[in-house]
Amino acid sequence: MAEAVAENKSRERVPMNGVNTPTLFATINAVKAQPELATFRFTATNQWLKGTHSRSRIELFTGAGAEHRHTGDVQFDADHPAVLVGGDAAPTPVEFLLHAIAACITAGIGNIAAARGVKLTSVESTVEGDIDLRGILGLSDEVRNGFQQMRVDFRITGDADPQKLREIVDQAKARSAVYDVLTNGIPVAITVDSARG
Amino acid sequence: MAEAVAENKSRERVPMNGVNTPTLFATINAVKAQPELATFRFTATNQWLKGTHSRSRIELFTGAGAEHRHTGDVQFDADHPAVLVGGDAAPTPVEFLLHAIAACITAGIGNIAAARGVKLTSVESTVEGDIDLRGILGLSDEVRNGFQQMRVDFRITGDADPQKLREIVDQAKARSAVYDVLTNGIPVAITVDSARG
Repeated sequence: MAEAVAENKSRERVPMNGVNTPTLFATINAVKAQPELATFRFTATNQWLKGTHSRSRIELFTGAGAEHRHTGDVQFDADHPAVLVGGDAAPTPVEFLLHAIAACITAGIGNIAAARGVKLTSVESTVEGDIDLRGILGLSDEVRNGFQQMRVDFRITGDADPQKLREIVDQAKARSAVYDVLTNGIPVAITVDSARG
Repeated sequence: MAEAVAENKSRERVPMNGVNTPTLFATINAVKAQPELATFRFTATNQWLKGTHSRSRIELFTGAGAEHRHTGDVQFDADHPAVLVGGDAAPTPVEFLLHAIAACITAGIGNIAAARGVKLTSVESTVEGDIDLRGILGLSDEVRNGFQQMRVDFRITGDADPQKLREIVDQAKARSAVYDVLTNGIPVAITVDSARG
C-alpha cells in the first residue's frame, strides 16, 4: 500500500471501484502520523447450540482509539454435515477459513486497484482446501488435523493489461492479514472456566 | 477420539448433546476400515461486489467417496468497516477466523463430551484477535500483516466435575482442524487468470 501511495502521488485521487480513495490515503497518512491508531482488537462470542452446531456473534471491535459496532450481518452459524455426524445447519468451521482468505485478498484487490487507478470489472475466486479426516478422528498420528493444502484461483478483469492486473493480486496477497495467518500461523492461547451445572 | 472410543467401549452408546453417538462411532469405524473415505475437499467461491465487499458461497464439498451439498446457509459476505474505509456490509475477513476457531473447538467439545458420556449444559467462548494495521497498510516492515495473537476463553458447564470438563476442551483443542491451521500454518497456492475487459 505504501508502494501504491508512492506511485499514486501525481494522480488525482478520486473514488474508484467503490473505494473512497481519498479517504483511504487520508487513513494511511493519519496512521503514519499516529501509529497507535493502528492497534485493533477483533472479538467474536460463540455459543454452543447442540451437537456440532454453534453460533458466533461478530459485533464489537476496538481500533483507531475507539469501540465500534458492525452494522451489517453479525451472526454466523457453523455445523458439521450429515456425513460428518452433524445437522448441517451451516458450513463447517474449516470452510470459513476459505471464505476468510478469498474475502481478504479480494478486499485488498479492490483497494490496491483503486490506489493504482485501475478500474475493475470483475474479481472471482475459487478456494479449495484438502483435508484427511483421519487426523481429527484420531485414526492416524501421521495425518495432521488441519488442511494439508489450500489453493486460491483468481480470475480478474479490468481496464489494465493482464500483467498489471496480476501485480495487483500479488500485492493484495503480500498485504493480506488472512494469508499471513494461514501460511505462517499465529500464537493461540486457550483458557477454560469449567463448572458442574 | 480414538481415546474416546477406547474409554467408551463398555458404555451403552446413546445419542447425547444432540450428537448421534452410535453414528459417530460407526463413522470412525468405517473410516478405520476404509481410510480413503477420510479424504475431503472443501470449496468456496467468492465474488467481488464493490470496494472491499465480497460474497462467498460455501455449498459443495466432496468426501466419503461422494459429492455433497450443504443444506443450511451457504452465502456469506465480508467487508471492511467505515473506520477501515469500507461499507461495513459484514464483518472483516479476519473476524471469520475467530468464528472458525470457536466453532471448530466447540463442535469437538459436543462430540467428545457425548463420546465420554458427559451431558453438556452450556458451552460459550469469547475469541479475541489483536492486529496492528501498520502491517497491511505497508507502514512498517517490522509489523506482520496478520493477528499478533489470538485468545479463546471457554466457559463450560455439564454433569461432570470441572476437571473432566476441562479435559474435554483440551481434547477438542488437540483434535481441532482450525486450531492446527491457525497455530501451525498451511501451504496456500495462489493462481491468477487476468484479462483486460
